[in-house]
Amino acid sequence: MTSVRDAAFDLFRARGMTTIFGNPGSTELPMLASFPADFRYVLALHEGVAVGMADGFAQASGRPAHVNLHTAPGVGNGMGAIFNAQANHAPVLITAGQQARSLMTLQANLTNRDATRVPESLVKWSFEPPRAQDVPLALARALHLAALPPRGPVFLSIPMDDWDADADEADVAHHLARTVTGRTAPAREEVAALAARLDAAAAPVLIAGPDIDASGAWDAVVALAERQHLPVWASPAPGGGRLGFPESHDLFQGILPPAIGPAAEALAGHDLILVIGSSVFPYYPNLPGPLLPEGAALVAITSDPDEAARAPMGDAIVADVALTVVALAAQSPESQRPLPPVRLAPDPVPASDPPAAAAVVDVLAEVLPQDAIVVLEAPSSTLAVRNRLRLSRPGSYYFGAGGGLGFGLAGAIGVQLAQPDRPVLCILGEGSAQYAITGLWTAAAQQVPATFLVLRNEEYAILKWFAAMEQVTGAPGLDLPALDCAAVAEAYGVPAVRPGGLDELRGALATALASPGPDLVEMRVAPGMAAG
Amino acid sequence: MTSVRDAAFDLFRARGMTTIFGNPGSTELPMLASFPADFRYVLALHEGVAVGMADGFAQASGRPAHVNLHTAPGVGNGMGAIFNAQANHAPVLITAGQQARSLMTLQANLTNRDATRVPESLVKWSFEPPRAQDVPLALARALHLAALPPRGPVFLSIPMDDWDADADEADVAHHLARTVTGRTAPAREEVAALAARLDAAAAPVLIAGPDIDASGAWDAVVALAERQHLPVWASPAPGGGRLGFPESHDLFQGILPPAIGPAAEALAGHDLILVIGSSVFPYYPNLPGPLLPEGAALVAITSDPDEAARAPMGDAIVADVALTVVALAAQSPESQRPLPPVRLAPDPVPASDPPAAAAVVDVLAEVLPQDAIVVLEAPSSTLAVRNRLRLSRPGSYYFGAGGGLGFGLAGAIGVQLAQPDRPVLCILGEGSAQYAITGLWTAAAQQVPATFLVLRNEEYAILKWFAAMEQVTGAPGLDLPALDCAAVAEAYGVPAVRPGGLDELRGALATALASPGPDLVEMRVAPGMAAG
Repeated sequence: MTSVRDAAFDLFRARGMTTIFGNPGSTELPMLASFPADFRYVLALHEGVAVGMADGFAQASGRPAHVNLHTAPGVGNGMGAIFNAQANHAPVLITAGQQARSLMTLQANLTNRDATRVPESLVKWSFEPPRAQDVPLALARALHLAALPPRGPVFLSIPMDDWDADADEADVAHHLARTVTGRTAPAREEVAALAARLDAAAAPVLIAGPDIDASGAWDAVVALAERQHLPVWASPAPGGGRLGFPESHDLFQGILPPAIGPAAEALAGHDLILVIGSSVFPYYPNLPGPLLPEGAALVAITSDPDEAARAPMGDAIVADVALTVVALAAQSPESQRPLPPVRLAPDPVPASDPPAAAAVVDVLAEVLPQDAIVVLEAPSSTLAVRNRLRLSRPGSYYFGAGGGLGFGLAGAIGVQLAQPDRPVLCILGEGSAQYAITGLWTAAAQQVPATFLVLRNEEYAILKWFAAMEQVTGAPGLDLPALDCAAVAEAYGVPAVRPGGLDELRGALATALASPGPDLVEMRVAPGMAAG
Repeated sequence: MTSVRDAAFDLFRARGMTTIFGNPGSTELPMLASFPADFRYVLALHEGVAVGMADGFAQASGRPAHVNLHTAPGVGNGMGAIFNAQANHAPVLITAGQQARSLMTLQANLTNRDATRVPESLVKWSFEPPRAQDVPLALARALHLAALPPRGPVFLSIPMDDWDADADEADVAHHLARTVTGRTAPAREEVAALAARLDAAAAPVLIAGPDIDASGAWDAVVALAERQHLPVWASPAPGGGRLGFPESHDLFQGILPPAIGPAAEALAGHDLILVIGSSVFPYYPNLPGPLLPEGAALVAITSDPDEAARAPMGDAIVADVALTVVALAAQSPESQRPLPPVRLAPDPVPASDPPAAAAVVDVLAEVLPQDAIVVLEAPSSTLAVRNRLRLSRPGSYYFGAGGGLGFGLAGAIGVQLAQPDRPVLCILGEGSAQYAITGLWTAAAQQVPATFLVLRNEEYAILKWFAAMEQVTGAPGLDLPALDCAAVAEAYGVPAVRPGGLDELRGALATALASPGPDLVEMRVAPGMAAG
């Protein structure tokens, strides 16, 4: 007989999911029993870190990743990271142990009595199979759903006594063999109409969002923009979990401001705004204004029905982003419109001691290898990193799109494990590093070669900036004195250095990026928002 | 005019809630603006730690405590700790910022679009006021509910633009003035019947649970046990968040085993089992057996209707635990039953290098001041600590009753802040310490004088024990090599020592307990479960 455990691991193996992230408890031990030699278990010391690693791994590998959590408290600890995975459209399979079936109704300790309710609003499917034999089908369904557009996390609660139960071999063979595809092209006439509308526009503009990279539409979007002479903006940075366009491309204009009024101002003069692979829009600060500039229309292409429906203005086409753009580019003639102006180089950064974070980013621009991947979670430096580094290859940038902290440090480990041949640089604030700090132990234990660069400014700089904008004074809790990430990293087994200036930083980064294990570079920077 | 903010802070002040725990984000800044000088903001670096501190503070102060979280991702990060607070019956007011009302429907970034759904199953009330003016009433209602039995956390989502809105002063005066009391005595005839049943029993036994201490029933339970010559067991340790009886008392027999079969065996020979202030029972490992020994009846006294209803056997009385026991003791005559045998002293611990965790606990028994409070989260040493320390004063022991990790380190900080005049010792494993490790920074920043004792055994010992019991072999992720809590503590600003043996430990603990700031003592101990 095949056990439920064997059937599940056969399914994981068939889907290429031989890496499992997790933090185990007693209710997870039966799943992990006799762990197969061709699988890898990546131990996190906190569930938020386990989920964050799986999120990064899923995004950077393009396939569902599996994270296993410890019944109710473990899922609870992982919820912030599950929120991030949802915002990131990351196909993460979250399994959680559950008390034995015979002990659930009397609510023995560790019964996850609201197993499906707690994560329900953050995942595409939340389920607890009513019988042990249903676990393989539930896993198969969960994986199909996670990978179908719009991608996102799924959750299964699995009672601990299910793993040794007998599975139905004939049924399991069907589950294993099924493929479910969901890449959909829009109706031909929709594409033709949009192509005509775009070509006829006097001054169209393209807004490139994160799902361009995720859906593999990168080259098609570049081709479309080049053919139609489109100026290109990135969708607002707070929701830009990935890049949508090469940021050193001559057509690239910058990052759209994230508030309603300023965004409309930035788009003034355009008559057609084509948004690809982004919600409309991940607004943030509350600066009111018109939703669109005078005379402008908007069309969004997204694989997410919810993103399409909730936008407060414009039309939308719900379909696979890559297929839609390929079809659109194929039907779009070479435009005669004048090319937009080329964006200026970033302003030079005045010298200071400690240096401004922007000056640190300029050093990165010098030393980062062409194939480097940046994972960013340094809120006061987001725009500086984007505008000064101008990353220009697909799969080169990951950022927690939901506004939650903790993805950065953990996600970088997952990204590096999924892309072992590319150097990964994780840029953090010393505040944001704390939401997943124990990931450093995992990085050391697994000898993950990622480099962690901590920009230490002794404050929650982004909050001071917000406070000024919101005219808030006298708020407590915005300073971070004596928060020494280098010492914490060393304590967790990650070698750390504190460069005394930009020259030392240059050398330290080069050494760290080339080293075969994790390293942390803590760089003291001036307080305040970094200049984009 | 009075603003919503002023009305809220007046309410907090009136309830003695001038300490606010939190980790702020932009959506919380308007609440924190012009933070009043008579309030204290305790900054955590992770929301799980903020909630854990509030949980400990609420339990140790006996009053609702306030924690403020950052919209969806902050609540997500806090969910594991909210799970713990629910299990601990801790009256915690959780407020979370929310996007501005005008930006919620279009789901701007940081909109907590399922604000009330995510924590709903873990709290007594989950609400988002439909108008700014309703915030003061919602806060008042939340605080009344949190404090009414059974106590527990409550959740409010508050849009960031509500705080500057005008409050209705006349309404607010009513909210401020209201008292709501919920201590209920059972009907007189119920008490009389139970007293008669108890006195008539041939061999009754008392099971003392955590809500004895929480409800202030400690002295009444001791009086009842002494009058009726009752042998007393503690309810099973995994659900025993607090002590219910002095554990060095001659009537005290030990801690009930947590599995169904062994618990019934331990109670064999008794004809009436009186359970006070506990669920029936916080079972854990799946060792089946009869729910009660042959010939035994069970009566539980609990303030929690859900605990009462879900028990699989026995009768229950739902009422205030203290009032019920006082009434019961008053109607119970001095019994003529023979006194039960006095429990033996713990077995001596054989010397070893490194010493067994039980030997470390024996040192604690020597050096801990009489008024010390122990906060415990070292799963493989729980029984050793309980059985060897035999704490015997009310309010002396706090433990995460739900089985989730992370309460210990954070909760100890809250307990110490609520009880500044009693020495607090927090006993952790190096694994469990990681779930709230950044709390060490807060302990240093606030100069909280708690002592953290880490029992370092380089493994998840409790999981290896469970694996052996569940006949699981070959599970990964159970070892914790190179996890150096002392170095991490030093990095966060908490002085740490690593005693080389038990004599050094004795001195180190005495020094740490007497010092005016936080200290961490990392003690290497032998692997495996500690002997109770």
